[in-house]
Amino acid sequence: MSKAQGSTTLWNYFSRHSPRVRRKRGVLPTSSEMPGIPFLPFSILQGILGVLCVGLTGFWGQHWLGGFAWDGSSEMFNWHPVLMVTGMLVLYGSAALVYRVPFSWERPKLPWKLLHAALTLVAFILVILGLVAVFEFHNKKKIPNMYSLHSWLGLTAVLLFSCQWIMGFASFLLPWAPIWLRALYKPIHVFFGSAILSLVLAACISGINEKLFFRLTNSTTPYSKLPAEAWFANFLGMLILIYGLLVLWALALPAWKRPDVNSQDIQEPLLQEAR
Amino acid sequence: MSKAQGSTTLWNYFSRHSPRVRRKRGVLPTSSEMPGIPFLPFSILQGILGVLCVGLTGFWGQHWLGGFAWDGSSEMFNWHPVLMVTGMLVLYGSAALVYRVPFSWERPKLPWKLLHAALTLVAFILVILGLVAVFEFHNKKKIPNMYSLHSWLGLTAVLLFSCQWIMGFASFLLPWAPIWLRALYKPIHVFFGSAILSLVLAACISGINEKLFFRLTNSTTPYSKLPAEAWFANFLGMLILIYGLLVLWALALPAWKRPDVNSQDIQEPLLQEAR
Repeated sequence: MSKAQGSTTLWNYFSRHSPRVRRKRGVLPTSSEMPGIPFLPFSILQGILGVLCVGLTGFWGQHWLGGFAWDGSSEMFNWHPVLMVTGMLVLYGSAALVYRVPFSWERPKLPWKLLHAALTLVAFILVILGLVAVFEFHNKKKIPNMYSLHSWLGLTAVLLFSCQWIMGFASFLLPWAPIWLRALYKPIHVFFGSAILSLVLAACISGINEKLFFRLTNSTTPYSKLPAEAWFANFLGMLILIYGLLVLWALALPAWKRPDVNSQDIQEPLLQEAR
Repeated sequence: MSKAQGSTTLWNYFSRHSPRVRRKRGVLPTSSEMPGIPFLPFSILQGILGVLCVGLTGFWGQHWLGGFAWDGSSEMFNWHPVLMVTGMLVLYGSAALVYRVPFSWERPKLPWKLLHAALTLVAFILVILGLVAVFEFHNKKKIPNMYSLHSWLGLTAVLLFSCQWIMGFASFLLPWAPIWLRALYKPIHVFFGSAILSLVLAACISGINEKLFFRLTNSTTPYSKLPAEAWFANFLGMLILIYGLLVLWALALPAWKRPDVNSQDIQEPLLQEAR
């Protein structure tokens, strides 16, 4: 198959499953729905925003917070925001959107489930490293752990995320998982997917806010005078929020949901497809 | 009509529109949906949680922050969290849930739209008073306004909320609003309804977090030692988050959406019903 043919096929998949086409075919309701927006430009925009979120968090650490190290110093702490934004926001958000790729809808679901599991697993590893970074820093500097609302919220998000991963693996990937368990757990998994992302957004915002107060309270240009760093990090917070809200919006959009209402898939344990 | 008959009718409305009944009638898809939860117990739980959120915010102000006044002092500031939690979280959240009341589904939509508009208007007035409380306090104490990420986020939420109210009024309540405008704006209104609530949650969390750092940094028992006030306010933050996430969840639940796909309502300017 030539490259041109390949991209035509990809384009066909996208256009056959566009909200406009699905609505014409009567698959979708017409009210309470955004006007048809194609998934491809949206995912490119999200990719750019995601790279910006990670890149700007890294830039904050490098340019203002003193760079990076892994030795219990404040430079070790600087890994915390970078790893959390990368893992818990961008990779997690991308993993959640995997099933919204229209190209995947008429293909077997298993490879996409494995991709979802792999992305969330990498996200989880980064998140654990992000926790190690802040705990090690606190312990070395004799700063108590887990007192601020930011930390309570963040740890709640991480604990729910780990439950989500284990339960998702046990229900959707193990071939001997009973069908009733998948049917029961799927909507719960979907709900907590979005709920955890909301927790993550609140944790990111409160984390950036508190870091700026820590950093700039006794500075010659305090936070209240809005030095360049404060502008930069406030802007970063707003960007993170926009990224997360767009993911939540895409997840909630009926037209972008994988049409699995009458599919066999819900009635079959997953790995059977691979056998 | 006797009281007993009235409550039977009410019960009939609730049970006829329960997710279980609607699914049996084939109105709803069966996958990706929570097991049927009736709206009535949920709304009672939300009512209790909402009262708790407002009551505990008030208790924090009265018991730890020095009580309330309206004179530019720090006691005037204490109105800020109470008014914001009441207006921007609890009243706003309740207003958003108005169309989820199954009792309303076979009744004319207009009274419910007026209730929605009235609740959000009261919320908006409280929010403006909440802003006055913090700006007056800052101005009197010569503290700069609008520098923290919390303030940027909160003001964004309030500005979007005011656009939302004006656009909602112009599109859904003015009888001469064109139908194409209603059809175009409705999904945008629905999306921003949830997006603003997510901003509010992040603003509440970062606000409580920063207030605790302000209050307890130079205290004999700093935030990091988790005095009673820190436990209390952290708990309040988690409660606010649970309240907000439950509203977002209820708004997203397909089974609880007003079945208006084929209703006349979408094709008619609103106040015609009242003429």
